[in-house]
Amino acid sequence: MRHHDIAVIPGDGIGTEVMPEALRVLEAVGARHDIRFGLRHFDWSCETYRRTGRMMPEDGIDRLREHDAILLGAVGAPGVPDHVSLWGLLIPIRREFDQYVNLRPVRLLPGITPPLRDVGPGDIDFWVVRENTEGEYSQLGGRQAEGTPSEMVLQVAAFTRRGTDRILRYAFDFARRLGRSHVTSATKSNGIFHSMPYWDERFHAIAAEYPGIEVDQYHIDILAARFVMSPQRFDVVVGSNLFGDILSDLGPGVTGTIAVAPSGNINPEREHPSMFEPVHGSAPDIMGKGIANPIGQIWSAAMMLDHLGEEQAAADVMRAIETVLGSGDAPLTPDLGGTATTTDLGAAIAEAV
Amino acid sequence: MRHHDIAVIPGDGIGTEVMPEALRVLEAVGARHDIRFGLRHFDWSCETYRRTGRMMPEDGIDRLREHDAILLGAVGAPGVPDHVSLWGLLIPIRREFDQYVNLRPVRLLPGITPPLRDVGPGDIDFWVVRENTEGEYSQLGGRQAEGTPSEMVLQVAAFTRRGTDRILRYAFDFARRLGRSHVTSATKSNGIFHSMPYWDERFHAIAAEYPGIEVDQYHIDILAARFVMSPQRFDVVVGSNLFGDILSDLGPGVTGTIAVAPSGNINPEREHPSMFEPVHGSAPDIMGKGIANPIGQIWSAAMMLDHLGEEQAAADVMRAIETVLGSGDAPLTPDLGGTATTTDLGAAIAEAV
Ligand SMILES: CC(C)[C@H](C(=O)O)[C@@H](O)C(=O)O
Ligand SMILES: CC(C)[C@H](C(=O)O)[C@@H](O)C(=O)O
Repeated sequence: MRHHDIAVIPGDGIGTEVMPEALRVLEAVGARHDIRFGLRHFDWSCETYRRTGRMMPEDGIDRLREHDAILLGAVGAPGVPDHVSLWGLLIPIRREFDQYVNLRPVRLLPGITPPLRDVGPGDIDFWVVRENTEGEYSQLGGRQAEGTPSEMVLQVAAFTRRGTDRILRYAFDFARRLGRSHVTSATKSNGIFHSMPYWDERFHAIAAEYPGIEVDQYHIDILAARFVMSPQRFDVVVGSNLFGDILSDLGPGVTGTIAVAPSGNINPEREHPSMFEPVHGSAPDIMGKGIANPIGQIWSAAMMLDHLGEEQAAADVMRAIETVLGSGDAPLTPDLGGTATTTDLGAAIAEAV
Repeated sequence: MRHHDIAVIPGDGIGTEVMPEALRVLEAVGARHDIRFGLRHFDWSCETYRRTGRMMPEDGIDRLREHDAILLGAVGAPGVPDHVSLWGLLIPIRREFDQYVNLRPVRLLPGITPPLRDVGPGDIDFWVVRENTEGEYSQLGGRQAEGTPSEMVLQVAAFTRRGTDRILRYAFDFARRLGRSHVTSATKSNGIFHSMPYWDERFHAIAAEYPGIEVDQYHIDILAARFVMSPQRFDVVVGSNLFGDILSDLGPGVTGTIAVAPSGNINPEREHPSMFEPVHGSAPDIMGKGIANPIGQIWSAAMMLDHLGEEQAAADVMRAIETVLGSGDAPLTPDLGGTATTTDLGAAIAEAV
């Protein structure tokens, strides 16, 4: 029996509602594959912040460190500014554990009608690889002449050779691992004067190490348009922290899967735990109703299994999700046009496993 | 007879092919409305750069200054890096003439099938108002330790009170002028630590000056997804230089109009000439074939007419474009599924005027 220690942080809002369903599915798939999960729960959230002035305790990072992976729900609550809640939990975890890859699938799922015409299952199936620790997400900068007409705010993006090269290499290695032959770079070297020409330079340097892989690059503006106009043609798309963030919401927007898409915050060297979380937020508007769609959390758990080396278990969970969605009589939550609860849908997927 | 002096810069690639069609349409509409255009041509381009080492002569800005407006084709050619060609012509013009508004319509046109299912003419009709002179498009920053493993590039975005407030005010004034009641702000205050919380702060301050207008704001990642999932719900969307750039390509991508969308680079105070240009680039791949779609250039000329106070003439040009596209037997260029030439389509629109 294999054993994995998982830190479970449900977080805020619907995070606390969808997490139990992911754990239910993990239990089911663990039973089938002889995997034991040691789960430790952490109630860190905006609630914690209101009580203690911190999103997580001072030794939070250390308490997470001993786990094999982290499963996160969602963070954020009305009244707590995003740049407080996120920079107090999500972003420090990404950085302290050097989770420099943010990985998100863009895939049509059975039973989900995408907003695009003329596309069907299998037509859109690619990954966005996002740099997750530096670039535009930076605390460098500040404000001067506050409150006066001369007020000015500077925001500094920082791109290091190390940070740029390693995400680009990951994208190429990942394409190879998937057996895909095409890597696309998101750039904006026609407008962003220093950082993006540098990004292009490194992209070409790293691409030269992977002669079997075809490359192209698009400015982020036209690339965003191409996600809508011809999403069929991508395999792996690599972008900076900000561009990757945009593309990895836009992609699931195009496939109609934004409410169910997962993400991995990955430390590929496995020196630190990686973290898996749905793309959706804490959705305060529907919290407490028990109708949140748990698939994003469950799919995130599947990505976590894959990362832990449990490829077979991961594939089973994905198959269960697709079977339930494609069955025609699944208990669907309201966002998918049904009337089922979070628990109904979670139980159906656990059952299908 | 009213008179307007127009500086005409066809630029590179298909810019030189579509410009004559816009001028043909201007002539037709001028004849109808008793408007005389004084046209002065400038051959500034990457060709000029190759010959002289400059995209435009040293006194280029001064030579443009005396005109009422500038009609630009497209700039860019293979072998000339974008950040050279654009920062040597397009961007200095935007800045020297304080064209701090970049304005772009997102609109379904008759006869053009959008990539989205379930939308029809009239369903999508909004404007992106983009800050056009500061923000993320900045020459501030640089590189250190070039060529070493410690290499690092900093890119600084600068947001001033003046620059931020005036674009936000323009968006609200513009919404009022259109009789629209809803302004949406593009932000990323959950990830971009200094500049975007500041942007939000100013958005709320300026919104308070326009009590009749409903506001909302979305982070750029989810906003991009919403452009695809529910483009019907926008009236005016305002964003920083970079976010506006992305959204104003994504919008026309969603409506299928990217090859025909126009843009205005506007100095609202009319202290300097404003500049109008199609969204498409110089398209080296199809240049010289005479098959480029001239509608983006013609629509840009319509926006120019509107800016010059020739609202009636502008409306006539738009009506001509829509009549031709909707007629069912128009001479369409290959990008629209036809076999006509640039000239055929331009002539048909001039005729319809
Ligand atoms: C060509 C480039 C510098 C430009 C921009 O990003 O501003 C273009 O994309 C545009 O939107 O006009
Ligand atoms: C919540 C926010 C900071 C975050 C980001 O922009 O990284 C989110 O959009 C994501 O993609 O995980």
